[in-house]
Amino acid sequence: MPEDIRKNFSSDNVVRVCPEVMQALMEANNGSASAYGNDAHTDLLNTRFGDVFETEVAVFPIVTGTASNSLALSALVSPFGSVVCDQVAHIQNDEGGAPEFFMHGAKIVTIPSPNGIMQVDALQNIIHEKKAAGLLAPPIHALSLTQTNEWGIVYQPSHLAALSDAAHAEGLSVHLDGARLGNAIASLGCAPADTTWKAGIDVLTFGGTKNGAMAAEAVVFFLNERTRPYVQDFKRRIKRSGHLWSKHRYLSVQLLALLENDLWLHNATHANDMAQRLSIGLAQHPDITLPYPTESNEIFAALPETIIDTLEKAGFGFYRWTTPPHITGTIIRLVTSFDTRAEDVDAFLSHITI
Amino acid sequence: MPEDIRKNFSSDNVVRVCPEVMQALMEANNGSASAYGNDAHTDLLNTRFGDVFETEVAVFPIVTGTASNSLALSALVSPFGSVVCDQVAHIQNDEGGAPEFFMHGAKIVTIPSPNGIMQVDALQNIIHEKKAAGLLAPPIHALSLTQTNEWGIVYQPSHLAALSDAAHAEGLSVHLDGARLGNAIASLGCAPADTTWKAGIDVLTFGGTKNGAMAAEAVVFFLNERTRPYVQDFKRRIKRSGHLWSKHRYLSVQLLALLENDLWLHNATHANDMAQRLSIGLAQHPDITLPYPTESNEIFAALPETIIDTLEKAGFGFYRWTTPPHITGTIIRLVTSFDTRAEDVDAFLSHITI
Amino acid sequence: MPEDIRKNFSSDNVVRVCPEVMQALMEANNGSASAYGNDAHTDLLNTRFGDVFETEVAVFPIVTGTASNSLALSALVSPFGSVVCDQVAHIQNDEGGAPEFFMHGAKIVTIPSPNGIMQVDALQNIIHEKKAAGLLAPPIHALSLTQTNEWGIVYQPSHLAALSDAAHAEGLSVHLDGARLGNAIASLGCAPADTTWKAGIDVLTFGGTKNGAMAAEAVVFFLNERTRPYVQDFKRRIKRSGHLWSKHRYLSVQLLALLENDLWLHNATHANDMAQRLSIGLAQHPDITLPYPTESNEIFAALPETIIDTLEKAGFGFYRWTTPPHITGTIIRLVTSFDTRAEDVDAFLSHITI
Amino acid sequence: MPEDIRKNFSSDNVVRVCPEVMQALMEANNGSASAYGNDAHTDLLNTRFGDVFETEVAVFPIVTGTASNSLALSALVSPFGSVVCDQVAHIQNDEGGAPEFFMHGAKIVTIPSPNGIMQVDALQNIIHEKKAAGLLAPPIHALSLTQTNEWGIVYQPSHLAALSDAAHAEGLSVHLDGARLGNAIASLGCAPADTTWKAGIDVLTFGGTKNGAMAAEAVVFFLNERTRPYVQDFKRRIKRSGHLWSKHRYLSVQLLALLENDLWLHNATHANDMAQRLSIGLAQHPDITLPYPTESNEIFAALPETIIDTLEKAGFGFYRWTTPPHITGTIIRLVTSFDTRAEDVDAFLSHITI
Repeated sequence: MPEDIRKNFSSDNVVRVCPEVMQALMEANNGSASAYGNDAHTDLLNTRFGDVFETEVAVFPIVTGTASNSLALSALVSPFGSVVCDQVAHIQNDEGGAPEFFMHGAKIVTIPSPNGIMQVDALQNIIHEKKAAGLLAPPIHALSLTQTNEWGIVYQPSHLAALSDAAHAEGLSVHLDGARLGNAIASLGCAPADTTWKAGIDVLTFGGTKNGAMAAEAVVFFLNERTRPYVQDFKRRIKRSGHLWSKHRYLSVQLLALLENDLWLHNATHANDMAQRLSIGLAQHPDITLPYPTESNEIFAALPETIIDTLEKAGFGFYRWTTPPHITGTIIRLVTSFDTRAEDVDAFLSHITI
Repeated sequence: MPEDIRKNFSSDNVVRVCPEVMQALMEANNGSASAYGNDAHTDLLNTRFGDVFETEVAVFPIVTGTASNSLALSALVSPFGSVVCDQVAHIQNDEGGAPEFFMHGAKIVTIPSPNGIMQVDALQNIIHEKKAAGLLAPPIHALSLTQTNEWGIVYQPSHLAALSDAAHAEGLSVHLDGARLGNAIASLGCAPADTTWKAGIDVLTFGGTKNGAMAAEAVVFFLNERTRPYVQDFKRRIKRSGHLWSKHRYLSVQLLALLENDLWLHNATHANDMAQRLSIGLAQHPDITLPYPTESNEIFAALPETIIDTLEKAGFGFYRWTTPPHITGTIIRLVTSFDTRAEDVDAFLSHITI
Repeated sequence: MPEDIRKNFSSDNVVRVCPEVMQALMEANNGSASAYGNDAHTDLLNTRFGDVFETEVAVFPIVTGTASNSLALSALVSPFGSVVCDQVAHIQNDEGGAPEFFMHGAKIVTIPSPNGIMQVDALQNIIHEKKAAGLLAPPIHALSLTQTNEWGIVYQPSHLAALSDAAHAEGLSVHLDGARLGNAIASLGCAPADTTWKAGIDVLTFGGTKNGAMAAEAVVFFLNERTRPYVQDFKRRIKRSGHLWSKHRYLSVQLLALLENDLWLHNATHANDMAQRLSIGLAQHPDITLPYPTESNEIFAALPETIIDTLEKAGFGFYRWTTPPHITGTIIRLVTSFDTRAEDVDAFLSHITI
Repeated sequence: MPEDIRKNFSSDNVVRVCPEVMQALMEANNGSASAYGNDAHTDLLNTRFGDVFETEVAVFPIVTGTASNSLALSALVSPFGSVVCDQVAHIQNDEGGAPEFFMHGAKIVTIPSPNGIMQVDALQNIIHEKKAAGLLAPPIHALSLTQTNEWGIVYQPSHLAALSDAAHAEGLSVHLDGARLGNAIASLGCAPADTTWKAGIDVLTFGGTKNGAMAAEAVVFFLNERTRPYVQDFKRRIKRSGHLWSKHRYLSVQLLALLENDLWLHNATHANDMAQRLSIGLAQHPDITLPYPTESNEIFAALPETIIDTLEKAGFGFYRWTTPPHITGTIIRLVTSFDTRAEDVDAFLSHITI
């Protein structure tokens, strides 16, 4: 991977910390503070997140998205139960078995779906099928969705709500993996509440790191009858997995900085804009196709190997993706971030000559 | 707890990040870097730690001590096995069940010992007893020691070596919880190798956070026949517990900064010196006794309640400890750090009038 | 171990199946029956056990005591919680780590106590201590007691009730390991209800195998507000641990046979009587001491090695126990069963000449 | 379900114990025997199974198939690893999450395949895909196959060998779920060795219960370099899951009785013959189709609802199966056993009038 940030489109994980977050860390580095989250900065989290999401919340900062998803699911799913998700979900394919570890061996049940957007009837079918299996199949205790999804595609709030309704009707709780939630909100132009608790989400993994933090996500419980019991012992689950920071303020201030003046949404909007610029540029080439619409900060494009070679030789960074047989060329993934500049995009596009 | 660092002796967890570490974080905030530990800073860790410990090592940065201890033990102990430690060990009493979680239910077997310094014959006895129990008792796969121990007392390297020998003779691996290893080395005036692998330690939890980092410890495997198999999949264990940072350089540079110019030992020496100053001052009071010798940066002192009241009213921070019946007064724990100044100690002592 | 049952006092595990149970197995071997516990014999269990214990129960037959104890505890204790028991309890020392496996790494917290009879204040102290530790100590969710205990000593129902009250007052549920419950009831001469739910027990491991079954215990929930939620998914826990028999009738009929005409109590009474005969005989020898009173079917006796040699050479079977330094001689354990005859005891005693 | 065995074709789980096994249990009920598998009957198992399979084996009797499969896999697969199987495999769909529990959260990775017969290239593809995913995907440590498979279809030994070779080439161990292994061997007319270790199987779940035992399966390790380390602590895994019988002889004699004079193969041959008789009879009806060939003792047939009604009203027992849209009628499963008589089959067929 190229260390030159200007040429590195491989992930929103490879970029630096955004300046406002770094500034907040320096400002917090002053005096002492009670350990393990009993500090003044951490005290602010519930209020600030509550303001942003316009409802009562319980917020738990966690250092990685894998831990956030896994901890959240461990509260929702009994060890003898299961969670249902899309077959391309991060929790199923990209977290090294962490969800199963935190859930003590509970099962992940997957559903195939077009473009990674789960269909309501498919969800209902699997719930009924597993119920009918009785003792032979672990009961489904939760639904986990992803916004934006693994293809950078954004769920409409009404679609999320329909899925949540179907889940709640069968006694399931609903989790949203929001590693790129800001990008979805920026894309939808909606309020944060609209694509979360107003759409039936019970607990959210709020993504900070890809948005500009050093290492900070948050598990956000939207408080209701279903979620209150999960909140009670959640900090014990954090401690028990070695995720409770002693100098906890340095975790909390990252999140506070992202919320301050809607920085997280500005960062996400900028990343999305850069993705659009890149996507539009790519689409103009006659030999390049885009198998998925560009709705957030991820672009998937099928390129001839010759162009890919040219780009790699020019020092650009990106990942090759599994390419289905019906696609001509090779799919690559490009990701933009708060730190991507228009000139970086243009420099990339300049190497794609027709 | 008082937010005034000058009056807060409650823990080395409540202090800020030391300036050199903060500087290193800012300097790292530049350009892009491959995620998940495949960056240039992380690449340096094995060499730098190898230099410090004068042997070949495999280093894995981890954000908390609880996670470091638990991950290390999970590599050494099968789910059906057990680990033996002192009955006051942190892994037994202070980590919220994390070791058992990471070890998938393996058992912690404890031994009582004077001043938290494990005796060789007690170790041998428990190993033989559990062996004799056959299938009824999980086999002991590892010994876990703590340097400095829970009472701030320092093991002599020869004593550690005798315990390690006894463990190795029975097929156990040896782990050292070094949350305050720097303080022990500063106290002993020995080389880091002397109190670790030369004393038979196979794997070390290297403490950074209490020493001055923001949030950084390291699991350090001293490479030998026993430890090489543990190293192979260790990064999978880290990922599976949600402890693999995507922007990994910010974890690694903290450790590099601590090693640079022996900063960690300078920090530890300063903290120890301040503890001596405090301990000597306390010992001069006729109504104060010190149930344990002050050998590192923790002081345990039994004070009359009247003095404790005076100190608390003056705004000083510290914890009350369980006090055995034979002790007069109440035991409090005081902890010094890199950030404690001589005048802070003197101000504390000035409130203890005879 | 001698295969001659007449000389084998090593355990109530080494004896055969009592004739009534074997007869019941043969009678059940007729026609087909729905699998997994949906058969006519299993249907009778709740009623029959309810009659014996004079209350509403939910009964789950399980093939071993280790599985019964572990499954029961897994329902009562969250993975991040803990269970408290006596330091000599079977679940702590003799089940190969099974409770921790089934509880997904929850911790066993132990209390020392004289003769293995837990004291109420010791229980209250440990509960308060762990509460005070906050996140650092897993919360205690259950108390596990043993009747008769590991030394064959019988709790008075009033003592059990006091312990249960102390546990319930702090929100704990109460489990009773009744591997030898029949012997305790026979010894106390009380009703089964008196030493179980009337003494505050929420869930019981009912021991069948040591009493005369082939391989059959039962987890018995005494239905109340605390226990009803545990019952709901208990069969899922059984299936998930591979303990749900397909040809389930053969498990259930063993238990029905033991309850029929109070066979289990007759078997226990006989075993106790034989133990008394043996104990009284031993006590008459000037060089033999009994460190614990003989209250059920286990006798612990300290014998000179010369007598032990004589007995072993004569072909008698028994185990040597760990002998504390203040005891003269070596402690052996002798166990009687439904199948021990008076002449077997007398033959044993005849080898102990004064 | 009808209790009349003559009309119950719902499973080979609903039948009684075959007379020879019951006789063996009665004969074993004599005198005392050392507990936990240290008895004379259990001592014979390795030799007897070694004779039958013509190689050196380590045999561990286990009371259920779910426990046998799960225990075997727990030895082969690290908690951070995964096992690959067909998407209709019993371990994935019918064991209530037991494999994940015993494997401490290791993942089950599934492959679709025609008729439940795994294809070699599909296996190789998934292995390569997961390898390429690096830390994000748990490494595959084992392949689990099923003989006969979930549709009663029998793998050819050469096909098993090709799959095993592909697995071994990538460092995987190979498990065979042989709940109905006897039926497969009877169908193939081969030696037991041919479809197990000679086809690359490392560890076998040997099915006894469906064949005629009361409750007895066995985990059989075929000793080689890969399997020897698994054997070492296997009995600890059994104890830790509560599956070690104290009166162990009663588990072992069931297996010995099945091996005696090839009873298990005679039982399986008879069940297969009855299945053929039933299958041929069904196939003659113009409105009935058989979606899968009848190769062992399971028959899947698609019947018009009117015929199903007639059969149910006549008191016959069987299960309805999920029926794909392209099939006319409803699929039912019929299972025969050692206890099915030709007149029982003919009575069933007599209700299917053309």
